[in-house]
Amino acid sequence: MQLLDGKLLSQQIKLEIAEQVRTIKINGGKKPCLAAILVGNNGASETYVASKVKSCQEVGFDSKLIKLPADTTERELLTEINKLNNDDQVDGFIVQLPLPKHIREQKIIEAISPEKDVDGFHPNNMGKLALGLDGFVSATPNGIIEMLKRYNIPTEGKNCVVLGRSNIVGTPMSLLMSRKAYPGNATVTLLHSKSEQLREHLKNADIIIAAIGIPEFLKGNMVKEGAVVVDVGISRVPDASKKSGFTLKGDVKFDEVAPKCSYISPVPGGVGLMTVTSLLLNTLKAATRRHADK
Amino acid sequence: MQLLDGKLLSQQIKLEIAEQVRTIKINGGKKPCLAAILVGNNGASETYVASKVKSCQEVGFDSKLIKLPADTTERELLTEINKLNNDDQVDGFIVQLPLPKHIREQKIIEAISPEKDVDGFHPNNMGKLALGLDGFVSATPNGIIEMLKRYNIPTEGKNCVVLGRSNIVGTPMSLLMSRKAYPGNATVTLLHSKSEQLREHLKNADIIIAAIGIPEFLKGNMVKEGAVVVDVGISRVPDASKKSGFTLKGDVKFDEVAPKCSYISPVPGGVGLMTVTSLLLNTLKAATRRHADK
Repeated sequence: MQLLDGKLLSQQIKLEIAEQVRTIKINGGKKPCLAAILVGNNGASETYVASKVKSCQEVGFDSKLIKLPADTTERELLTEINKLNNDDQVDGFIVQLPLPKHIREQKIIEAISPEKDVDGFHPNNMGKLALGLDGFVSATPNGIIEMLKRYNIPTEGKNCVVLGRSNIVGTPMSLLMSRKAYPGNATVTLLHSKSEQLREHLKNADIIIAAIGIPEFLKGNMVKEGAVVVDVGISRVPDASKKSGFTLKGDVKFDEVAPKCSYISPVPGGVGLMTVTSLLLNTLKAATRRHADK
Repeated sequence: MQLLDGKLLSQQIKLEIAEQVRTIKINGGKKPCLAAILVGNNGASETYVASKVKSCQEVGFDSKLIKLPADTTERELLTEINKLNNDDQVDGFIVQLPLPKHIREQKIIEAISPEKDVDGFHPNNMGKLALGLDGFVSATPNGIIEMLKRYNIPTEGKNCVVLGRSNIVGTPMSLLMSRKAYPGNATVTLLHSKSEQLREHLKNADIIIAAIGIPEFLKGNMVKEGAVVVDVGISRVPDASKKSGFTLKGDVKFDEVAPKCSYISPVPGGVGLMTVTSLLLNTLKAATRRHADK
């Protein structure tokens, strides 16, 4: 069994991005710039955004954090988005979710210019993914693909089961794994809460992407010998022995499943760490494209 | 075994649309209007467009056919599209494919306003489909969904195999069948040219959507007893006994497969007839939406 080490990989990719930024600067180019809009005072959101800004600094990107009060109106937020859409300094930007309840998330997502939508949540980018066109793939699926690629996991013709059909992980993963590309060309089965024969499909899978959000859902007896397992879940489970009062658990019962796997990604230390790195990759791509268009 | 009768269904749906158009007119509304752009002199394309225009007349829609010469430039075509995007009389329009080789198809597709894209080929509409949002679903997948719905085929929790991953049928069908809706909520496996264990997946399928484009690919021994089979393929196979010199064949070897099925769609007389009807349904939807927005 070999670990799919998200920590190691994300460090490596960040070094590569930093190298590319240096090359851009040497050639007289502009540093890539990522902007983030944060509305309100959600603690988790503040942590995520801070980590994104910090990662930008690590690789030499410019970054811009726009903090708006919790009572910002939808119209005011749309005005900020419009400014960033038209700001030539900004290559890509994100609006940190969730938003306060009085703001319609979908309306906000669709207001972002698809060319700067480095989160890949705009229908236009999701459509490009489905059609096999070159757009922005959202961070988690993008990170998983990068992980499979860098560990040279064979995917062509393999049975791949994606567990969970969410818009941000399961559905895009199912599309990516079945498209004509590497990683891809797999026979993908998308399982969800309504699926019958769940166990039969899992037992037959060469690759399992678990993104169902139920801690330790995938047990040892549900996986075949030699499978590749990617664990996307991150749930906080109460744990009195910890100072924080909780432990992070994935969707996979690691101690049971790991011994049967050829490769498995741990939680923490797996896919989670790849997501911020994916966002940096998308921002670099956005910057490179905008530069090439000029 | 019961036939999924596309001819009967499409006639029935056209009557329903005609009834709705009458209601719109009684209430002082504008008749829905579909426009079609045809570039060059491709015989098959001319036939398709003529049949679309004729169907518009049958249900009481206005229609508009714009015929452009084969040497139309990409820029000229974009200008025509822009006119239709801004033409308040036109609710929806299509550009008949294929286009002459000097015109980039993808560029043309993306120039159509998503709100008038009744063919559902724009990435924005494909993305909405993938995200479970309300957009325009392209004609063939839309027709199949309508067929399953009107025959009350149970889909929730069933194993559904989609054979073929094309952008216009296989991929959108796999998304539609796995989304949270009826028809949908199925466990979908998308098979394609690189799939191993093709037979195992097919034998396990409660519902098979065959869209692989190989005449009579699906044989009797590949299907389980009681399966629902939807045949999307239409290939011309040489046949000296016919005046035309060919017979239309689907992707399914009908005489072998049909006796094992609970439901099966024939070729011809199945899915093919539903596609023009789907286009009419999308046009009616586009018109209704535009009216509601005013």
